[in-house]
Amino acid sequence: MELTGLNFIANERSGNGNETFQAINPANDEKLAPEYVEATNEEINTAIEKAEEAFQEYRHKSGAQRAEFLEAIADEIMELGDDLIERCSSETGLTEGRLTGERGRTVNQLRLFADVVREGSWVDARIDKEESTPDIKSIKMALGPVGVFGASNFPLAFSVAGGDTASALAAGCSIVVKAHPAHPGTCEMIASAIRKAVDKAGMPAGTFSMVQGVSYEVGTAIVKHPLIKAVGFTGSFKGGKALYDAATSRPEPIPVYAEMGSTNPIFLLPGALKEEGEDIAEGLVNSVNLGVGQFCTNPGLVAYESSSESREFRRKVAERFKEIGSGTMLTSGIQSAYNSGLEKLLSQEGVELVAEGKADGAPNAGTPHLLQVNSRNFLSNDSLEEEVFGPSTLTITADGKQDLVEIAKNLKGHLTATLYGTEEDLENYSELISVLQRKVGRLIFNGYPTGVAVNHAMIHGGPYPATTDSRTTSVGTSAINRYARPVCFQNFPDSQLPDELKDDNPLNIWRLENGEWKQ
Amino acid sequence: MELTGLNFIANERSGNGNETFQAINPANDEKLAPEYVEATNEEINTAIEKAEEAFQEYRHKSGAQRAEFLEAIADEIMELGDDLIERCSSETGLTEGRLTGERGRTVNQLRLFADVVREGSWVDARIDKEESTPDIKSIKMALGPVGVFGASNFPLAFSVAGGDTASALAAGCSIVVKAHPAHPGTCEMIASAIRKAVDKAGMPAGTFSMVQGVSYEVGTAIVKHPLIKAVGFTGSFKGGKALYDAATSRPEPIPVYAEMGSTNPIFLLPGALKEEGEDIAEGLVNSVNLGVGQFCTNPGLVAYESSSESREFRRKVAERFKEIGSGTMLTSGIQSAYNSGLEKLLSQEGVELVAEGKADGAPNAGTPHLLQVNSRNFLSNDSLEEEVFGPSTLTITADGKQDLVEIAKNLKGHLTATLYGTEEDLENYSELISVLQRKVGRLIFNGYPTGVAVNHAMIHGGPYPATTDSRTTSVGTSAINRYARPVCFQNFPDSQLPDELKDDNPLNIWRLENGEWKQ
Repeated sequence: MELTGLNFIANERSGNGNETFQAINPANDEKLAPEYVEATNEEINTAIEKAEEAFQEYRHKSGAQRAEFLEAIADEIMELGDDLIERCSSETGLTEGRLTGERGRTVNQLRLFADVVREGSWVDARIDKEESTPDIKSIKMALGPVGVFGASNFPLAFSVAGGDTASALAAGCSIVVKAHPAHPGTCEMIASAIRKAVDKAGMPAGTFSMVQGVSYEVGTAIVKHPLIKAVGFTGSFKGGKALYDAATSRPEPIPVYAEMGSTNPIFLLPGALKEEGEDIAEGLVNSVNLGVGQFCTNPGLVAYESSSESREFRRKVAERFKEIGSGTMLTSGIQSAYNSGLEKLLSQEGVELVAEGKADGAPNAGTPHLLQVNSRNFLSNDSLEEEVFGPSTLTITADGKQDLVEIAKNLKGHLTATLYGTEEDLENYSELISVLQRKVGRLIFNGYPTGVAVNHAMIHGGPYPATTDSRTTSVGTSAINRYARPVCFQNFPDSQLPDELKDDNPLNIWRLENGEWKQ
Repeated sequence: MELTGLNFIANERSGNGNETFQAINPANDEKLAPEYVEATNEEINTAIEKAEEAFQEYRHKSGAQRAEFLEAIADEIMELGDDLIERCSSETGLTEGRLTGERGRTVNQLRLFADVVREGSWVDARIDKEESTPDIKSIKMALGPVGVFGASNFPLAFSVAGGDTASALAAGCSIVVKAHPAHPGTCEMIASAIRKAVDKAGMPAGTFSMVQGVSYEVGTAIVKHPLIKAVGFTGSFKGGKALYDAATSRPEPIPVYAEMGSTNPIFLLPGALKEEGEDIAEGLVNSVNLGVGQFCTNPGLVAYESSSESREFRRKVAERFKEIGSGTMLTSGIQSAYNSGLEKLLSQEGVELVAEGKADGAPNAGTPHLLQVNSRNFLSNDSLEEEVFGPSTLTITADGKQDLVEIAKNLKGHLTATLYGTEEDLENYSELISVLQRKVGRLIFNGYPTGVAVNHAMIHGGPYPATTDSRTTSVGTSAINRYARPVCFQNFPDSQLPDELKDDNPLNIWRLENGEWKQ
């Protein structure tokens, strides 16, 4: 398809602004046509006003209608064919294989949310009916227009048609997406697919808009607009925290679901190191270097007790790190942040470089780095826990079991924590498990945190500073709850109730009736 | 029981501070013994540190154990007998009849949450198990130590053993309560009951603490403490917003569930006014004046279209208002805020006094006031929507149907909205219903908002500024979700999983297994 560089303001395309920017191919630093026009305040306001207008109609669409819409989006994305993969690869440096996989994940996610809203029980319908008191019924309903901010590292699955879009549209919210300036062409292609789906499914025009921009002002204008009722964001700590602060200081504060940095600590327990040290080393090297380390679940900390096995483990990891080449990172900004993050880390007391991968001199290449520190230095320096986005990891050597637990206790919030151990290890380290439950959204046993399944039970979230709201997830079907709130109906006639609450349960959903789950 | 004036710091009683205060009987302005000692920072910190220590154990107690604890609290409150009702009445001016009812509500609420955690399905257990991929399982787990702030107007049901305490303890959180300075003796009695229950049920000492204080510093010290992970509050907009701002600007922001002001608009539709005008008038007068108007669901706005029936309705309400005497308000502060609120309201353009109740000259008496304004003035003046806490209501005359809808569209968030109408009215005013769904937590048909049932479906919440988090409720069993967040276990051996996620479902709870609800 031909790219225009314009914004999507409901069913209009416009580019009234004077500022433009272009995507850059990180593999060769060349600019990619066309020029993208940064949205003006007026365009942003129009998009949001249309989103509000659309919301008044869209929120009343049935689950089945919203499901068809989500499925139409998935179909239209597939219709984009190889063009999408090629453009996306040239904007991100990610391989076509990886992006084909990510596209599959993206459309499956849309279809999974379609299933959820077609089935309908997600609304948590509750009915209390007793003689002599008015009946009380409640369900979750959509919050209102939502602002969506995608991430650079998943240009499909966490971007214009990513998890926040899928869950917000599923919940019944209209959305205004801020396109990611690192992949504006990919964003435009996906946006055009969504627009086709809006028309095909007969949804109101303002259900979806997308604005382009590199400046902070575009994002802030969305978050500060009084008609926006929630925000979904995936990206850096700095970006997410700025949006959180903007949203909580509005005259009407709104929820911000920002998934930010995470260092995803791994704890290697003695039994596992003894029995499987070599395999774990191999797995760690792969996990750290997957996609040039550009995953929010990239394991950036590896803690173990000092022992001959752990020394052997580190030696093995170092050996493998040296064999791995550098890879093109997503943007020059990300590459320079990676290098300066490493530099800062290496300047901290007690942090040493153990091994380095092969630098090949290509533009924007990130080179694997293995670093080490002891627990004393780690525990006395908060900054060692900060994410260095890229293919590096810091090993931490503890003086025995209690010291290892101390490392866990000292952690801030992360998306994940991983334990490698035998079943006997787990029994011996139950305190460690208990501590880690309070630090993360997901605890992994004998596996790596990279790779986040999209299903019903997945939680991709965690305590601050991993996210600004630990009570939700950005992956998995419970994400739909982000964009809804409960509304209660007292003594309403059946004819005026949403179908989910009608006496004869026409949608056949699960409901909590007088305290019992029934279908 | 003998009151001491001391703080409850886990299982110790202490009063190390120099500042003291006393409760005042609002009916006669007399001070009530003993002197209460404002908690020092050191005492607050100790309470919170003990809460953290206790949490590590308490969070692993089974649902059945927590249920026994909640039931023990209910039993111990009943054991306090008439002493509690008498002290509470002298501190609040509320009648013994009302307080006996409120005590029933309070213990029933504790028992209802006991039922919820004993049954166990509230944790939203989810299990995804597929061949060839690691199994993913998640449940909700307690957030951590919680700060609880009670309200003056429900000294039992929204105070030390109120909804936030019941739901936080049910979820598995330890709590530190800030006692309400208007009823410190009631707080002390309830706290002593909880302490007995802590011991009886074998819970760790720091599970419950309570600190006294009149200064803002005591509350802020709780909210700002890094070990506190969530806050429940019921009270004024000013108080709730201050805690919200304090919590969101912490180095680690935490959720604040503040239920603040609400004016609970009522919409009287033409058919109902024609058919039932007289009954509705009588009901409104009672609802506005119930408990001297000191309910968060007190109907402070009544909107209708101009017609001969609505004029007759207002005449009728005015007639009845003049017959009603004044009543003792909770505190002198609340009474003077009521009077200055009325004064401010009456000074606004177009606001007129329609009728006044009988002032009897008693101390701290609130006198019923009926005010009126037209929709033009109402729509152009935001301040007319603000709560005036006490027995007053403002009628708003609209110019026809569309103007009535405009009034609804213009509303900020409220706890409730009420529609009086015939079924035909509802069909004619479907837009009004749709608009109001976005403005409130609970929509009532042909009934008054005062009176909030404690059950599974109740939602006592609503968009800002009614609360700081519209996604939850402070009454009803879903309130337990406030104090928990989801935690995901990937590939964990059965032996290390919480019982809720074990393969053979030993607790027999409802779980979402591969997308299907099963027991």
